[in-house]
Amino acid sequence: GMSATTANMYRMVSIAEAQETVLKAISPLPVMSIGLMDAMGYILGKNVIAREPLPPFPASIKDGYAVVSSDGIGDYDVAFEALAGTAAGHLKAGTVAYITTGAPLPHGADAVVQIENTEKLPPGPEGQQRVRIVKPAKGPRDDVRALGSDIAAGEVVLAAGSLIGAAEIGLLATVGRATVKVRRKALVAVLSTGDELVEPDQDALGPGQIRDANRFMLAAAARSAGCNVVDLGIARDDPAQVEAKFQEALSTGVEVLLTSGGVSVGDRDFIKPILERQGTVHFGKVRMKPGKPLTFATINATASRSSSGQLVVFGLPGNPVSSIVTFNLVVLPALRAMAGWPEPRLRRVHARTQTDIKLDPERPEYHRVSLHWHRTGESAGELAAASTGGQISSRLLSMRSANALLELPAAQGVLPAGSIVSALLIDDLGSMPVPEGIPMIVPAL
Amino acid sequence: GMSATTANMYRMVSIAEAQETVLKAISPLPVMSIGLMDAMGYILGKNVIAREPLPPFPASIKDGYAVVSSDGIGDYDVAFEALAGTAAGHLKAGTVAYITTGAPLPHGADAVVQIENTEKLPPGPEGQQRVRIVKPAKGPRDDVRALGSDIAAGEVVLAAGSLIGAAEIGLLATVGRATVKVRRKALVAVLSTGDELVEPDQDALGPGQIRDANRFMLAAAARSAGCNVVDLGIARDDPAQVEAKFQEALSTGVEVLLTSGGVSVGDRDFIKPILERQGTVHFGKVRMKPGKPLTFATINATASRSSSGQLVVFGLPGNPVSSIVTFNLVVLPALRAMAGWPEPRLRRVHARTQTDIKLDPERPEYHRVSLHWHRTGESAGELAAASTGGQISSRLLSMRSANALLELPAAQGVLPAGSIVSALLIDDLGSMPVPEGIPMIVPAL
Ligand SMILES: [Mg+2]
Ligand SMILES: [Mg+2]
Repeated sequence: GMSATTANMYRMVSIAEAQETVLKAISPLPVMSIGLMDAMGYILGKNVIAREPLPPFPASIKDGYAVVSSDGIGDYDVAFEALAGTAAGHLKAGTVAYITTGAPLPHGADAVVQIENTEKLPPGPEGQQRVRIVKPAKGPRDDVRALGSDIAAGEVVLAAGSLIGAAEIGLLATVGRATVKVRRKALVAVLSTGDELVEPDQDALGPGQIRDANRFMLAAAARSAGCNVVDLGIARDDPAQVEAKFQEALSTGVEVLLTSGGVSVGDRDFIKPILERQGTVHFGKVRMKPGKPLTFATINATASRSSSGQLVVFGLPGNPVSSIVTFNLVVLPALRAMAGWPEPRLRRVHARTQTDIKLDPERPEYHRVSLHWHRTGESAGELAAASTGGQISSRLLSMRSANALLELPAAQGVLPAGSIVSALLIDDLGSMPVPEGIPMIVPAL
Repeated sequence: GMSATTANMYRMVSIAEAQETVLKAISPLPVMSIGLMDAMGYILGKNVIAREPLPPFPASIKDGYAVVSSDGIGDYDVAFEALAGTAAGHLKAGTVAYITTGAPLPHGADAVVQIENTEKLPPGPEGQQRVRIVKPAKGPRDDVRALGSDIAAGEVVLAAGSLIGAAEIGLLATVGRATVKVRRKALVAVLSTGDELVEPDQDALGPGQIRDANRFMLAAAARSAGCNVVDLGIARDDPAQVEAKFQEALSTGVEVLLTSGGVSVGDRDFIKPILERQGTVHFGKVRMKPGKPLTFATINATASRSSSGQLVVFGLPGNPVSSIVTFNLVVLPALRAMAGWPEPRLRRVHARTQTDIKLDPERPEYHRVSLHWHRTGESAGELAAASTGGQISSRLLSMRSANALLELPAAQGVLPAGSIVSALLIDDLGSMPVPEGIPMIVPAL
């Protein structure tokens, strides 16, 4: 039936206030140990310090001959081979040692002459290898990496708070960290609510039915952020059923619950009353388009098995665009903050609009665009923003290929094409479109 | 011993030629079916067409009352409730129906009045619900999504070649695709070669030893591209052992083999001779810094179980920076092309240098930088490039936090700070540093 709504009790907060409220309410999750190969995408929980110098010995940079640099050009006996992975030998002045890249420089040698600057000679009278140094070493240390020149012993190679990518994995391997201390990532549960929803694999739609998209989209987005996801399925528009799902989230030990639907202004909004009973609703309405019904609550879960001791709940709107836009603007920074990102907010850039855009007089709007790089004349280049078309919040096609959200002010009228606006990155520009060839710039020297 | 080298047989090719050669030698992998929730990061193999319109019925955009718009303001009996997930009822003029967001508009109704524009009245004489319409619908279709207004039946919602992200997962769910046709991704094997290498978990280093970083770094980079990785371990500097690893790669059915080490100009280079015996070496030397020894070969593997019918081999240099830079410049575009990316190459942008940079007179150099957004005055903003410091190819710290490679020309002298140069993106700018606060731009209207 038509029970009393609580939605109107909520003050409409700004998006900035909403983001701040969320980031204040959560904390980074505990640090855990993880195998090196699984550490990608995590934030390092502790400084990593090199125990040894790298290289751990003076090492050859080239394949060639270890020499006493003052010996200069001339013909030499090859006294021995200094191979990678062996102990450094002892070289006498007046002789050279064949050496491979990365091998320890023999004691007594002070430089390397690369093989291209040498000529092999016929063996000497006693069958010994001989070589001609055609171009001498430039002096001591030529083509030699000094001990500790890449990494000093005791150096912080990666600071706590670093995001671990492929290069960082390489650094961790180099300094002998087969396991790594990283911040945990939130376990996230997704729940869709609505009597109209059916699973995507349902063949034919019954009267009034549509397929659930949000649960799959939000789960994918949370996984993109590196989170594991628990699928709580679909709850009917029935307070008891929704409440049972909340209990399931609490008992599963998830740190974050994402619901979609059931938070808009009508009578049939079950999410806010349940949240009010179980915890604290920090906001229930945000001045933004799309996404106005966005709701945020925390439940202090003594009964919860979550490692943070609380369940954070985002009541996302049911319209698919609203749910993914609010995910990006509010949930993703929260997941990043829990994962230990020092700067969890979306990255802001500026972009030039390619078409006129009608503004909303009442709410700041997050207009979905596809950014690409563009350069005219001698400029440093800029980001051009192509609108994804009709922005109604039910039209998920407006999120297709979107890699940024323009931050449009609430204002009357039309923003003319060619305007510069702020934009928040929501996808990797490493896959941005390339509608124009982007030429290399060869700087004038 | 010192056997004859083959490295000098190879013409030094340009990086552009190397990239073109690689992209010509490979083809997109076959299309396969995958579950919706596992489709993130894949390229769609076939157009996806909507079978039904969305919404599949005229639907309310708001919680409120379905009305005959010409009825206007006034007090009305609430004839019934039109709830989400139910069949559309029939509304008589002069009455209204309570309606929830997403519910089918009753037959006979032509608009919705949102609940904020209504007032509940006391029940009527026969106990019927009554409501006052305070602000009327603007006309037919007000707050109603027309059938098919978000997605038309027969519309291509996602084209073959689309990269699947969270929004695309949502679209696929919406149109009922619980499984999706995507391009396979390459199975990649990694192999490190060198007598000097030990595993990262080895506690103390013996004489001449260093820890293997490349295998872990390259495996992580390949996994970032969504590939599964087979770890072939470390091969000693022994042709028989290296050749056995090649056989293992062939019999495992991998499509791509990444070796590191053993390709530089000295005598101890085992990779090229093996590749020459087993297949075609397309190039063995590239005019670039770092990465000159980069080698590329294809082995037509009738014996191979790879789905592409060939094994593609990248012989990457042993220096860790060289290996990860050449991975990004040459291997990653190849993996993307195999995965079906329409534009597999790294995205080029332009950036302004923050420090003087010494150029290399002989080879174009890929200088590692950390890009961040910067704006002065009224400009559209630009990317500022902070060098990661000393660029010697053994110094993996130069890759730490690097998100782009500057494309510096081979030239004498120094590129002054403040120059605009081309840069290739190698990491997600969504995690770029924010050394300066980036203010919102509120466009003047
Ligand atoms: Mg609903
Ligand atoms: Mg080697």
